[in-house]
Amino acid sequence: MTAVNEPVALGLDFGTESVRAVLVDRNGRELAVCESAYRHGQITDTLPTSGAVLPTHFALQNPADWIESAAEATRNAIERSGIDVDRIVGIGVDFTSCTMLPTCVDGTPLCELDRFRQTPLAWPKLWKHHGAIEQTERMNRIAKERNEPFMDRYGGTIGLEWFFPKLLETIDKAPDVAEAAEVWVEAGDWFVWQLVGCDAADLPRSTCQAGYKALWSADSGYASDQYFAAVDARLAEAAREKMPGRMLSPGQSAGPLCGELADRLGLPAGIAVAAATIDAHSAVPGVGEAEPGTLVMVMGTSSCHMLNAIEGKPVDGVAGIVEGGILPGLFGYETGQAAVGDAFAWLLKLLNLDSFEQLGKHAIALPAGAEGVMCLDWMNGCRTPLMDGAVKGAFSGLTLATTPAHMYRALLEASAFGVRWIVDVLREGGIPVQRFVASGGLPHHNPAIVQVYADVLGSEIEVHPSEQGPAIGAAVLGMIAAGESKSGFASVADAARAMAGVPESEKKIVKPNLDDQASYHELYRRYRNLAEAIRTL
Amino acid sequence: MTAVNEPVALGLDFGTESVRAVLVDRNGRELAVCESAYRHGQITDTLPTSGAVLPTHFALQNPADWIESAAEATRNAIERSGIDVDRIVGIGVDFTSCTMLPTCVDGTPLCELDRFRQTPLAWPKLWKHHGAIEQTERMNRIAKERNEPFMDRYGGTIGLEWFFPKLLETIDKAPDVAEAAEVWVEAGDWFVWQLVGCDAADLPRSTCQAGYKALWSADSGYASDQYFAAVDARLAEAAREKMPGRMLSPGQSAGPLCGELADRLGLPAGIAVAAATIDAHSAVPGVGEAEPGTLVMVMGTSSCHMLNAIEGKPVDGVAGIVEGGILPGLFGYETGQAAVGDAFAWLLKLLNLDSFEQLGKHAIALPAGAEGVMCLDWMNGCRTPLMDGAVKGAFSGLTLATTPAHMYRALLEASAFGVRWIVDVLREGGIPVQRFVASGGLPHHNPAIVQVYADVLGSEIEVHPSEQGPAIGAAVLGMIAAGESKSGFASVADAARAMAGVPESEKKIVKPNLDDQASYHELYRRYRNLAEAIRTL
Repeated sequence: MTAVNEPVALGLDFGTESVRAVLVDRNGRELAVCESAYRHGQITDTLPTSGAVLPTHFALQNPADWIESAAEATRNAIERSGIDVDRIVGIGVDFTSCTMLPTCVDGTPLCELDRFRQTPLAWPKLWKHHGAIEQTERMNRIAKERNEPFMDRYGGTIGLEWFFPKLLETIDKAPDVAEAAEVWVEAGDWFVWQLVGCDAADLPRSTCQAGYKALWSADSGYASDQYFAAVDARLAEAAREKMPGRMLSPGQSAGPLCGELADRLGLPAGIAVAAATIDAHSAVPGVGEAEPGTLVMVMGTSSCHMLNAIEGKPVDGVAGIVEGGILPGLFGYETGQAAVGDAFAWLLKLLNLDSFEQLGKHAIALPAGAEGVMCLDWMNGCRTPLMDGAVKGAFSGLTLATTPAHMYRALLEASAFGVRWIVDVLREGGIPVQRFVASGGLPHHNPAIVQVYADVLGSEIEVHPSEQGPAIGAAVLGMIAAGESKSGFASVADAARAMAGVPESEKKIVKPNLDDQASYHELYRRYRNLAEAIRTL
Repeated sequence: MTAVNEPVALGLDFGTESVRAVLVDRNGRELAVCESAYRHGQITDTLPTSGAVLPTHFALQNPADWIESAAEATRNAIERSGIDVDRIVGIGVDFTSCTMLPTCVDGTPLCELDRFRQTPLAWPKLWKHHGAIEQTERMNRIAKERNEPFMDRYGGTIGLEWFFPKLLETIDKAPDVAEAAEVWVEAGDWFVWQLVGCDAADLPRSTCQAGYKALWSADSGYASDQYFAAVDARLAEAAREKMPGRMLSPGQSAGPLCGELADRLGLPAGIAVAAATIDAHSAVPGVGEAEPGTLVMVMGTSSCHMLNAIEGKPVDGVAGIVEGGILPGLFGYETGQAAVGDAFAWLLKLLNLDSFEQLGKHAIALPAGAEGVMCLDWMNGCRTPLMDGAVKGAFSGLTLATTPAHMYRALLEASAFGVRWIVDVLREGGIPVQRFVASGGLPHHNPAIVQVYADVLGSEIEVHPSEQGPAIGAAVLGMIAAGESKSGFASVADAARAMAGVPESEKKIVKPNLDDQASYHELYRRYRNLAEAIRTL
């Protein structure tokens, strides 16, 4: 029995195409989930204001869409749940990252100013925006030359999708925008800023986003002024003067919900707002996982594979190791694959098909190895372990007998081999990986992928029943931000277990087909050979 | 003015999907061209008699289709031309090669016997049948061990598509068929045999087909009995006892047309029948080319690139060098690409499209290099220079921005890079290549391909206006077989120039876009790197 006055938290999960709002009570009951697609989606072809064709690899978003869709999803969720809004005690926000933008000191995005409406680099750059290839190379080269200590935490490489390369891209290519910018901010932090309506000096910045994407650590802050200056004096100035705010851990309160946003969202003003977290990282509490050694695979357009460990050791090729970056008291390891759902959607479009449903049956009927067709799933670069956004995908083993089903199966297997590579890298680095939990939308929309992952890993995979892992994680953080007096929880781990854990009897386990183990071992070796051949072309 | 009683020759061009009949008078007027698709086309999926699923890489044909389609096409051509059939003085036949079959001593194909109707390996194996991979490896290994002298003429490699590997495949996999076979014969020779209706002892065998596909030379005949015996005693026996007949050069008379086939085809009995030639080789006289140094590119489902030279030198990777193999008095060099039209048809089907027409515009608008997408056109193996039917195709440089147009352009460029590789190999071997003539159906159905070839080669390409190069070449050979008294021609070269040459003023020349030369040079280097990487995976 659920008491009618039990506290409820709102999780807002900002994805690549849409925002999801979920209302969860302290016993883990999902009272409603509503989704609202962004009016402009991913802006990759033309700028909506001017119709100008964007360069390849550009991916932007519209900040007004975030507010509009969050309001729609939240209002619909409240209505659908039928609850009294006064039961809602806190809001948590998770966001794609690094999605970032330049704003005025009052928070107005530069792209909303008349003078910059038609300037692509004044718009928020979505995580997958790959315009900063040259800037990333420069930042890496100089960091290596200077032997910068922060590099150890990032597997030795600054990522193409991270905060400062994106900032430097605007400095290089749109210096007027960079000069006009008063605040540079992660999109998740910007949204929380709007929710609490505070001054820029108090802008609540997430240690999770700063730690994983912006060269920040609790010990030493951002990378040094000397390093930034060695890259570009304007970058040093931006880091020093245009990044005001307070650093807050996920679950810490950023302040009370302001009146303006309360009206937009249909919520009571004054409820607690938690500091933002990264969508993938939010899935760890969101699937109720608070123990080290479990790889939480958040599978969507891209995949993030999150792992908590007791020890923090540098592992070559692992994008980010942040103490308390996912859960308090543990070292959070972030790894990922840059194109998963995106790659499947791309293949579907390339093959001029509406769905993989029919094709999936043919693909699954093929033997392991897709009769020699092999894929390299680098259609958006390789995140872990190469940290190289410039490498590209491939198919090999093509013959006149190759069908769309072969291509689809090869992509499924490539994606699985990508995960195996990540697990190998972690284990070889001395980081235990004992269990696998699949989360995110993809495992539910495409169950074949989880089976192929299990087969290739030779391990059971637990599929978390909610498709809303990150959103529920955000709700957990919102509940925590409300404080123990309102939520009844003393820690994030307690809240995660209570609000997102799955009873043993209800767990959905995908078991590996062990007949294919030897084949997959050999096929994985070939995948690695193909990867090496293509990488070094 | 054409005299109404000028002699006319019939060319029958047996392709992969259909036969074309062309009637040409001695001045080169095409009086009619008619095509008839084989009732069973390529038999690659299931055997028509049993419905049994064929192994991958099988490609068979039905001999009854050849007779039926030749009769239909010839009768239609005669009707369409409106000529008196008594003007027809000779018939030439060109055929895909090596397409071969086992027969009884009276010429009946084994697949037409009740006991073998449901046995796939009793049916004619089409040139592209790739069932003999293991047999080809064995024959090559033993030939190398024994340092067989014939290997120099074939670039050091016996091809997967050739006569004896196909024969050995049947010995290995269907020994009852091999034992029952009384005659093994190339399909082109079989058809000529049917036309003249002679005894097996007089079976007219083409030196062109034997020289290029069956380890035969005028100097030393077939490979030695000792070599064949070292491979398999039954292979030696077949070569010794089951290959009766006379060796005849293209253009030599195989005998008069017999009554039975005259009735089927609607022709007067007794007219001259020329010894068969290979379809691609027929295109050389068929485009009026009788000079050394011109690469005649016969572009269809696969491409054969034929070159005559004054000298005969072994060139590594060149499939066949036969003295007088194409034209008397010159060394004929045969090179080829195993999948051209076939590869485009495959891509079209893979991409679920009906035509490349719309896509072609997008593809041509892309810059040279297809924005990084690169293809390796080995969907049916690599003929020249690797002579390896087991290597497979690939696409690299794939991103989420890759569209079908990129794939199409990459395949166009890969096909052109394949030609450049062949030209480089010939030139590096000291064989002059000065001009390029494109022939076959593909340049007319897909003009984009010729432009890309010209751009990549940095050379003009003359597109022969007739789509019927091989068929006209066959007609030239038929005219010659009729003898000087009937044809008025003293040599094949004279007949070729008169019947198939194009007046200077009517030549269609595709000029290279020289702006892209530097790009293509670099892209070709990358194609070769990709080829090396994929080949050595």
